[in-house]
Amino acid sequence: MRVTIIGAAGMIGRKLAERIAATGAIGGTPVDAMTLVDVIEPDVAADFKGTREVFAADLTQSGTSERVIANRPDIIVHLAAIVSGEAEADFDKGYRVNLDGTRALLEAIQSIEGYCPRVIYASSLAVFGAPLPDVIPDTHQLTPLTSYGAQKAMGELLLNDYSRRGFLDGVGIRFPTICIRPGKRNKAASSFFSGILREPLNGVEAILPVEDDVRHWFASPRAAVGYIEHAATMDTAQLGAQRCMTMPGVSATVGEQIEALRAVAGDGAVALIRRAPDPAVAQIIAGWPRAFDTARALAAGFVAEKSFQEIIAIYLEDEMGQPALKGA
Amino acid sequence: MRVTIIGAAGMIGRKLAERIAATGAIGGTPVDAMTLVDVIEPDVAADFKGTREVFAADLTQSGTSERVIANRPDIIVHLAAIVSGEAEADFDKGYRVNLDGTRALLEAIQSIEGYCPRVIYASSLAVFGAPLPDVIPDTHQLTPLTSYGAQKAMGELLLNDYSRRGFLDGVGIRFPTICIRPGKRNKAASSFFSGILREPLNGVEAILPVEDDVRHWFASPRAAVGYIEHAATMDTAQLGAQRCMTMPGVSATVGEQIEALRAVAGDGAVALIRRAPDPAVAQIIAGWPRAFDTARALAAGFVAEKSFQEIIAIYLEDEMGQPALKGA
Repeated sequence: MRVTIIGAAGMIGRKLAERIAATGAIGGTPVDAMTLVDVIEPDVAADFKGTREVFAADLTQSGTSERVIANRPDIIVHLAAIVSGEAEADFDKGYRVNLDGTRALLEAIQSIEGYCPRVIYASSLAVFGAPLPDVIPDTHQLTPLTSYGAQKAMGELLLNDYSRRGFLDGVGIRFPTICIRPGKRNKAASSFFSGILREPLNGVEAILPVEDDVRHWFASPRAAVGYIEHAATMDTAQLGAQRCMTMPGVSATVGEQIEALRAVAGDGAVALIRRAPDPAVAQIIAGWPRAFDTARALAAGFVAEKSFQEIIAIYLEDEMGQPALKGA
Repeated sequence: MRVTIIGAAGMIGRKLAERIAATGAIGGTPVDAMTLVDVIEPDVAADFKGTREVFAADLTQSGTSERVIANRPDIIVHLAAIVSGEAEADFDKGYRVNLDGTRALLEAIQSIEGYCPRVIYASSLAVFGAPLPDVIPDTHQLTPLTSYGAQKAMGELLLNDYSRRGFLDGVGIRFPTICIRPGKRNKAASSFFSGILREPLNGVEAILPVEDDVRHWFASPRAAVGYIEHAATMDTAQLGAQRCMTMPGVSATVGEQIEALRAVAGDGAVALIRRAPDPAVAQIIAGWPRAFDTARALAAGFVAEKSFQEIIAIYLEDEMGQPALKGA
């Protein structure tokens, strides 16, 4: 099996590549060649035993897509994107990368007679915009309220249509907000969801810009890699024409996050959370999904954590080298 | 008011242009300049009293969009498209015209600082694919099962996003199946819906390839022009971020169409319908919408016929020069 990861320098791409290198497989299927691509050369999975190709390339540049699929990968994981904030700030760049880049890849695949790879497409909860029900069903309409969300929704439509036509075999994954993200806080409005756990776990003060009753949809980085592994090897016949699904996750309030932190790391950790309400952040988050009924993805075999304590335990295990919690 | 119609050689484009020429207005607002564009030079509205520009152009050719909006029209009616069957037969051409052509137009508009025209976009019921409820609500998800439907759904997402960003002021119209289409039968799977009425009304045999209980969603050509006129001048603030709507129409079975024909034209006309079941056509139609709850469009002031007899009466009046039915 040959696997190509586009966006392999990002957090999920790196973790996926490292896992393939560590296990020599994806979703249990042996991998003998791995191509890792990003706009910067991905410095990852150096110890992979199979053939490893690494290069920097931009999907919006002519010829990149052809190069990306030159070895006819069986599985293409397309994680590359301009993120939400940047796609909103730079309208043209967002469309160029998130829409045109995706389409260039699909067209390159289509142009090769008889080639029909599994294509795993990273979509987003941003395809859903307010007003939203408390629990969003699989049948909810796509109502993006950002350019990023519109681009991801268009990518989903392309993936469905190209799959229906038999040009590729697509699976679209709408990722929950990934928590706890390793590393430093960033400028994303969602950054604090990880920060209020990660910083205290590392003995550092964290800033909480919203109220405790804010609810959102989460999964761990490990779950995110698991979705891709499952998507890589699942039977797609069960998906029919609708190839894109919201992934299972944990619906939790900020207050529930904090109580999970207290249970795992004690009052001292919780005391490191400093409340600094930011109405701008609160307003952005107010339009976000709070919970999903992910019946389709669950039926298709996708799994995630069951509780926020489990999500924290995975961070401790995967990022801080602590042993796994019992039962987690 | 300056109006540009792209796709002005098509049935609805012609009728819209002729109506503007006849009334000197669109939706009651005076029109002093009209630009008519299609891939063939539109031969229409020659008696328009204002400034009339007519040319042949292809939106997918570089520079066409700029030329189309060179006089900064206040209202742009974008009807140009590769139809469903052709978009399915020629995958690349469908995307080039229906997606890239639309996007080129939107990008040309966006590139002009301070220009924010009303853009009326022709979408389609093809954005909805099976399985469908008996009555489809405004909130139903877009699940196209054709490339044409996918392209139209992407156009809707673009129109929403460009409107949200303030680059244009979009209204997306999902047209019912237009009935009774004037002229000859064509190769569209939907052709018989008009043919079984139009041919008998003209004393000609018609072929019915499906059962009498097949139900679908219809409006007259006059209603179609009316949607555009209303979209041209309505207050779009009420639409919020979701600019695209299914238009009101008449839900009718083939049997109800036939009984309406009998009521208007008698048993002799009905006798001209020859049943020739075509499983291929029946299968295509089986996945089509049967009825809609168009609460949003009705609240926004869009109107259509109330019965199939009214639809037939409009054909007799507009295409055969017969006087209007009382009450129709």
